[in-house]
Amino acid sequence: MKKHNFSAGPAILPASVMEEAARAAIDFNGMGLSILEISHRSKEFEAVMAEAEQLVRDLSGAGDEYGVLFLSGGASSQFFMAPMNLLNEEDTACYVDSGVWAAKAIKEAKNFGKIEVAASSKESNYSFIPKSYALSPAAKYLHLTSNNTIYGTQLHELPETDLPIVCDMSSDMFSRPIDMERYGLIYAGAQKNLGPAGVTLVMVKKDLLGHVSRKLPAMLDYRTHIEGESMYNTPPVFPIYVMMLTLRWVAAQGGLDAMALHNVQKAQLLYNEIDANPCFKGTVAEEDRSLMNVCFLPEKAEYEAPFMEACKAAGLVGLKGHRSVGGFRASIYNAMSQESVQVLTDVMRDFAQRVG
Amino acid sequence: MKKHNFSAGPAILPASVMEEAARAAIDFNGMGLSILEISHRSKEFEAVMAEAEQLVRDLSGAGDEYGVLFLSGGASSQFFMAPMNLLNEEDTACYVDSGVWAAKAIKEAKNFGKIEVAASSKESNYSFIPKSYALSPAAKYLHLTSNNTIYGTQLHELPETDLPIVCDMSSDMFSRPIDMERYGLIYAGAQKNLGPAGVTLVMVKKDLLGHVSRKLPAMLDYRTHIEGESMYNTPPVFPIYVMMLTLRWVAAQGGLDAMALHNVQKAQLLYNEIDANPCFKGTVAEEDRSLMNVCFLPEKAEYEAPFMEACKAAGLVGLKGHRSVGGFRASIYNAMSQESVQVLTDVMRDFAQRVG
Repeated sequence: MKKHNFSAGPAILPASVMEEAARAAIDFNGMGLSILEISHRSKEFEAVMAEAEQLVRDLSGAGDEYGVLFLSGGASSQFFMAPMNLLNEEDTACYVDSGVWAAKAIKEAKNFGKIEVAASSKESNYSFIPKSYALSPAAKYLHLTSNNTIYGTQLHELPETDLPIVCDMSSDMFSRPIDMERYGLIYAGAQKNLGPAGVTLVMVKKDLLGHVSRKLPAMLDYRTHIEGESMYNTPPVFPIYVMMLTLRWVAAQGGLDAMALHNVQKAQLLYNEIDANPCFKGTVAEEDRSLMNVCFLPEKAEYEAPFMEACKAAGLVGLKGHRSVGGFRASIYNAMSQESVQVLTDVMRDFAQRVG
Repeated sequence: MKKHNFSAGPAILPASVMEEAARAAIDFNGMGLSILEISHRSKEFEAVMAEAEQLVRDLSGAGDEYGVLFLSGGASSQFFMAPMNLLNEEDTACYVDSGVWAAKAIKEAKNFGKIEVAASSKESNYSFIPKSYALSPAAKYLHLTSNNTIYGTQLHELPETDLPIVCDMSSDMFSRPIDMERYGLIYAGAQKNLGPAGVTLVMVKKDLLGHVSRKLPAMLDYRTHIEGESMYNTPPVFPIYVMMLTLRWVAAQGGLDAMALHNVQKAQLLYNEIDANPCFKGTVAEEDRSLMNVCFLPEKAEYEAPFMEACKAAGLVGLKGHRSVGGFRASIYNAMSQESVQVLTDVMRDFAQRVG
């Protein structure tokens, strides 16, 4: 039976991408070799890297003033690399605390400079996105998390500020257009919208680099990877290859405008069902609802187990909510089809008719 | 035509591993989902991690006093993580400079403590392994590189010392038995003997940790990953899976004793041909010859191009020597068969008959 994969991450990828990746694991590009055994310095893999970078630039509109890097270590490594590269001990940066990952970013940044938490929704279990806060004009940057996977909230409008924005886009990267010039640094672990686990996309404005006095290990200095074109050391070849295939698919679908439309339609379908269905309710402020991670609770605790059973029977997987919110979470990233969301809403409606 | 892959890394893996990896990229374990889209917290992937760790412990003999970690960032990240976790600013560590990678390890370590270069073969273009050197008894550790991929030298006997040994085994890990109790820390990028690029195996003695006064970012503290069982953040799922398959294959071949025998036989076949063949010569001290990377030069410069052509015609790939040595390099890691080495020696003999 076809499975509908609603996992929060690692997460669904386009079926065509997985098929092409499987073929390449046997024979890549007719080389008679697997993508798993070829040199990262082979002309065939250098072409993959070049295409991946070009796709990132084409989709985002990032010009040469940005470095486009394919690193490892996940967004968790960017939590410390960003301040390590951008802040001196006496410098200030502003952070918005919109979830557990944002809080981890704050904790790591405190080792490298003065961190001001400009706003937080922690007291409300991160059920909304903080807005209308004051920012120190002397701050070096403002750090935001564009989508909060655990809570199902998403930043739909950037705050007004002249500060360069450093943004963790791990869970909504390339799900909608990006106003690139607002950003000094964007980072995103691949394993939601971009590819499999094991590679992290980083886009950094070059003129922000080189202003810190601390000594940086070569691997932790963004400039090393800009200069080495993400090949200073052996990069994660296969994850980068699958990311390139995924970005090709995004471009072929029509790019970020098309993705945004597709994602809005899927999310509306699901939120409409949650709002109309007497058995379920949403968990976050309506205006901050995420188009990527849709969190909802059963109206009665006893609905939880039988609804999960009904989902399982219909081939819907990955719907258990994170322990800090409970209930259900449907992650509907780029590669999730409208049809799969429809299967979920059908199960929800059917469930309400049975128990209602 | 079948290709014989002599690449230095990323490098040949067992054909059965690549076939199983390709199947898992479509459907993993009959889940109806690809290994590329499943949660790292799924019970199916947790079983992969547990089996990978157990295989590492079974093969190496490492007990619970060692943490076994699957990290990202390559050996290049261990160059700074090792001293960052093991050395205070005023502490000393001894390093042996046996190649370009060892020299990079030295350079990175200097940011974290007092580094003594106990011995170096740099002046001889690293054509031998330094031996019989004095070590500061107060040093916290001795850093070695067990195999030098670029130059084709290998450490065949550990120096006599009571210091804990920190060893970069990237290019010969699990190619022969390991005298585990001599080591405080072993690290190895996967992409030679262990799997595809994108994961690094680290084995660290737990009692060496927690003695430094500097603040460590969570991701750079080995204790974080020991406590989190390499799942503090999303690990590189697919590279770890393929490493597990490769370790399973090593165990099924008979483990490290069987690997050592297999590797000695292949290397002897090739070195015997180099020594007997009038068209070629070895590049390093005989007693330090690597069983993994066999470097050799043409006796006359004009042999180079036609020999490479002959190799290509026979389906032998990845034989071009590193620019700092020149000539040819045959990397014959665990997964390389005796038959493929035989094809290479046949081409060498045939070449000598044609031009000799």
